Amino acid sequence: MDNLPKCGANYVPLTPLTFLTRASKCYANRTSIIYGNVRYTWKQTYERCCRVASSLQSLNVFKNDVVSVLAPNVPAIYEMHFAVPMAGAVLNTINTRLDANNIAIILKHSEAKVFFVDYEYQEIAKKALELLTTSKIPKIPLVVVINDIDSPTGVRLGELEYEQLVHQGNSSYIPEEITDEWDPITLNYTSGTTSEPKGVVYSHRGAFLSTLSLLLGWEMGTEPVYLWSLPMFHCNGWTFTWGIAARGGTNICIRNTNAKEMYTNIVSHNVTHMCCAPIVFNILLEAKPHEYKPLTTRVQILTGGAPPPAPLVEKIERLGFHVVHAYGLTEATGPALVCEWQVKWNELSRESQAKLKARQGVGILTLADVDVKNFDNMQSVTRDGKSIGEVCLRGSSIMKGYLKNDKANISAFKNGWFFTGDVGVIHQDGYMEIKDRSKDVIISGGENISSIEVENVIMSHKNVIEASVVAMPHPKWGESPCAFVILTKNSQIKEVDIIEHCKSNLPRFMVPKKVKFVEELPKTGTGKVQKNHLREIAKTFVVLEKSNQISKNREKPRYYDQNQEQIHALSRL
Amino acid sequence: MDNLPKCGANYVPLTPLTFLTRASKCYANRTSIIYGNVRYTWKQTYERCCRVASSLQSLNVFKNDVVSVLAPNVPAIYEMHFAVPMAGAVLNTINTRLDANNIAIILKHSEAKVFFVDYEYQEIAKKALELLTTSKIPKIPLVVVINDIDSPTGVRLGELEYEQLVHQGNSSYIPEEITDEWDPITLNYTSGTTSEPKGVVYSHRGAFLSTLSLLLGWEMGTEPVYLWSLPMFHCNGWTFTWGIAARGGTNICIRNTNAKEMYTNIVSHNVTHMCCAPIVFNILLEAKPHEYKPLTTRVQILTGGAPPPAPLVEKIERLGFHVVHAYGLTEATGPALVCEWQVKWNELSRESQAKLKARQGVGILTLADVDVKNFDNMQSVTRDGKSIGEVCLRGSSIMKGYLKNDKANISAFKNGWFFTGDVGVIHQDGYMEIKDRSKDVIISGGENISSIEVENVIMSHKNVIEASVVAMPHPKWGESPCAFVILTKNSQIKEVDIIEHCKSNLPRFMVPKKVKFVEELPKTGTGKVQKNHLREIAKTFVVLEKSNQISKNREKPRYYDQNQEQIHALSRL
Repeated sequence: MDNLPKCGANYVPLTPLTFLTRASKCYANRTSIIYGNVRYTWKQTYERCCRVASSLQSLNVFKNDVVSVLAPNVPAIYEMHFAVPMAGAVLNTINTRLDANNIAIILKHSEAKVFFVDYEYQEIAKKALELLTTSKIPKIPLVVVINDIDSPTGVRLGELEYEQLVHQGNSSYIPEEITDEWDPITLNYTSGTTSEPKGVVYSHRGAFLSTLSLLLGWEMGTEPVYLWSLPMFHCNGWTFTWGIAARGGTNICIRNTNAKEMYTNIVSHNVTHMCCAPIVFNILLEAKPHEYKPLTTRVQILTGGAPPPAPLVEKIERLGFHVVHAYGLTEATGPALVCEWQVKWNELSRESQAKLKARQGVGILTLADVDVKNFDNMQSVTRDGKSIGEVCLRGSSIMKGYLKNDKANISAFKNGWFFTGDVGVIHQDGYMEIKDRSKDVIISGGENISSIEVENVIMSHKNVIEASVVAMPHPKWGESPCAFVILTKNSQIKEVDIIEHCKSNLPRFMVPKKVKFVEELPKTGTGKVQKNHLREIAKTFVVLEKSNQISKNREKPRYYDQNQEQIHALSRL
Repeated sequence: MDNLPKCGANYVPLTPLTFLTRASKCYANRTSIIYGNVRYTWKQTYERCCRVASSLQSLNVFKNDVVSVLAPNVPAIYEMHFAVPMAGAVLNTINTRLDANNIAIILKHSEAKVFFVDYEYQEIAKKALELLTTSKIPKIPLVVVINDIDSPTGVRLGELEYEQLVHQGNSSYIPEEITDEWDPITLNYTSGTTSEPKGVVYSHRGAFLSTLSLLLGWEMGTEPVYLWSLPMFHCNGWTFTWGIAARGGTNICIRNTNAKEMYTNIVSHNVTHMCCAPIVFNILLEAKPHEYKPLTTRVQILTGGAPPPAPLVEKIERLGFHVVHAYGLTEATGPALVCEWQVKWNELSRESQAKLKARQGVGILTLADVDVKNFDNMQSVTRDGKSIGEVCLRGSSIMKGYLKNDKANISAFKNGWFFTGDVGVIHQDGYMEIKDRSKDVIISGGENISSIEVENVIMSHKNVIEASVVAMPHPKWGESPCAFVILTKNSQIKEVDIIEHCKSNLPRFMVPKKVKFVEELPKTGTGKVQKNHLREIAKTFVVLEKSNQISKNREKPRYYDQNQEQIHALSRL
């Protein structure tokens, strides 16, 4: 039985490229992409990808070469998710919110051979390229500008333009055969809030399996109409770049995620699905009357990046959106757990439902296992919703590894598990709930304090809009919680009110020793609060309020300027 | 990028066993199985499987050993789908409709080490074992009887009983690690209507991928309530044995698929999904008043094995069932194509819809490709809905191969494709439609006639309930169509009426030269008409009606007795 050999008929390397080939045959005349006045069918998308792939090869792009792209959610970046690997190469999508320096670091580290730049980002791309030139790397990538396909601008950044590559390419190109499903397909750099960006490599196998698992996890049926409110540069659009082809759906591409553009597209095209960070809920909720359009059908939202606060879920659902919460990270090809709804929850109050929805849920089907391990002995914690530990994952949707970063690989992969750096619990019903990033846990007098737990209590105060809690050095307890709070407009609340509120709702050791009111919190592009910045500010509170001795012990001078900048930034807002 | 190694965290062999482990953690207290008054949760099912697996190992069952089971859809056979591979062994489910001789052939060919027998099948199992003993094979399998778990009978067939293995087993057993996803998981014998049964081997990888693809293809969400109307011995229940665990659903096990048992269970447990051959539609439609219960919710039916005639689909859907049609074969781990519904079809007439639904559809997501190849030059046929050829498949859901049957493997796997032996066309919209089994095609005067096409025309006659068309030897044309027809009760239709009806609706060469009215058609357990039997009967018509010379040329005497038997069987019905 063991001797039955693999052959071309029964062992075909797994790759999401088959989804496009299949779509070009089975969904040939269905609309694949809508962008303004531009429309393509799946047959056309396939042919355009063939053309781009063949043009890449004529530019000497071959197996395992990196092709970078800096672009918003326009058709070109969607097509490149297929075209680049069809040429045997590896797609590297770059976060458009990065500065020139970080872009240059990525181009250099990835050894990108070609760099596609949307015309809107030509200035920053130029700067990044200049930085590369001065750093004297052996080969500067070839630049291809992406003009706006709907309203071309004529902007150029060198010789080459995307549509020209499409035009000159061969629509009958036969894609490079994927002979090993472990071969790389994409390279995504982590946001690097705390360190240099790390290059996360996905395999064809991982991308294929994650795509199927997420379609299942979200229960996305055939013919979805998918709004690109999530940047494709985030884990390849949480795999839905490939997933929409698998489902024969329609991609609604948009350049910006402002309220007007989202509502207009949702209503004109009967959008059924969209992904976004919870921060986008606010954009949708705060739409001005001329931007807002009432939904005509229910829109499924898959959200992640940060747990959606229960009141926010309630508000957005009242508009006709239906929220599913997922948890993931770049290293896990996007969402790794989905908060699967249970029929029996239908009978609960809206409030209880929103609380359940805020949990991270259960592993997607491709993950072989999900565990929360005790920090000290690496044993599984009790599934009681209380015992905290580090969230660990294993399965074929986990990245191949970090590119050229053995140290990071060694610390991420241990004993057959991937360590996420997130701290969580597992509830009795098997649903995981993240309590914190491990680096965000506050250790006060030897007790672990989940910053998220303190934040939830503060946010339950009627005058609080948002709160973020970080560790602040403390002479006696080592660390103690410090809260940054945004209040509702014109409220007369004082620091002591928040502290009293916490005292009534939390164990004493968890009550913040300091509450700072701010107008806005520093956030990453995906809406994650940059707690490292807040921690630096918190340290200065101690410096200002407590003895210099503590400051010397816990603070490194190199952070100081950054803190000042951050305080400045906060006070400006 | 290539140098990033596989490790335990990011390359876990794919196996459906992870679905059960996951279910035992994430759906621990949900009902996994209902059978009469018996109920288990997923935690219990997992523990029972651990116990059975550990007991198997204590019976010296190890890696790659075959464990056979002959049982209806009771909880034990469901559990064995996990327990046997958890012990590292290979599950062989045997069709309960086979005779003792075929069962003996399978036990011998598979070299089964243990043979589980449901008490209802003890007599036939005894006969099969006697045949084995007389054939002097080196090792007769160890027999374990499966008593009825809901109402134990006390029947024994040797020393061992299933619940005893559960009882004696170790609930903390740690399943054998699957180190290679290409390892075998199950062994399913084809029905062998035309030849010796062939042993089809599935790998863990193939089973895992097929399961995910079918959940997607059928759009089965979480918490399905699944009625076991399809025997689990057919391609492991078209993978839903594993799929229901993946979805945290409830398995409704039933011993018989009579109308009463099905309706009672559907209504008591709010069944959401069931699979069956179209023949089961008739059982549901012909329920007597005391057997029938009106549905309280819509029940999804996935059907296959034979294309469901459009009027039958219409009738069953009026009762509240919703039919999806799939096409598959044992070699493809069950359904390989699913007739995916398209939104735009909603606006068509019921009749047009039923016609579209009768097509076989598009490949599931795990299939890398589906093609129809010209018989002569093996090139892809034009996608025009007319050009016929052999249906070919490739992808990781195709079997590892036939066990100990090099000849069959060589003829099935050619040039990286699996050849199904089915004849079909591809429509312009990419949907495949089966026209015939290649051996059922009628070649008349050099023209290929699809027997299904002729059948469809005959079935459109208002007095026809069912029709089957096969080749009959013809002195001039080589072969010509011969129709076996079941008429509605008390109809006065004559052979000439059917022939005239065909003349008005078909090209002349496709019109049957002979129409034989029968009371019933010989069918396999899955409701497929046994055309090989009808062909033998058709040959005798020629013998009786035409010259002896033709009979001598085309007929082999060894078929003769069989024909007589068959005619006898038909006339009895």
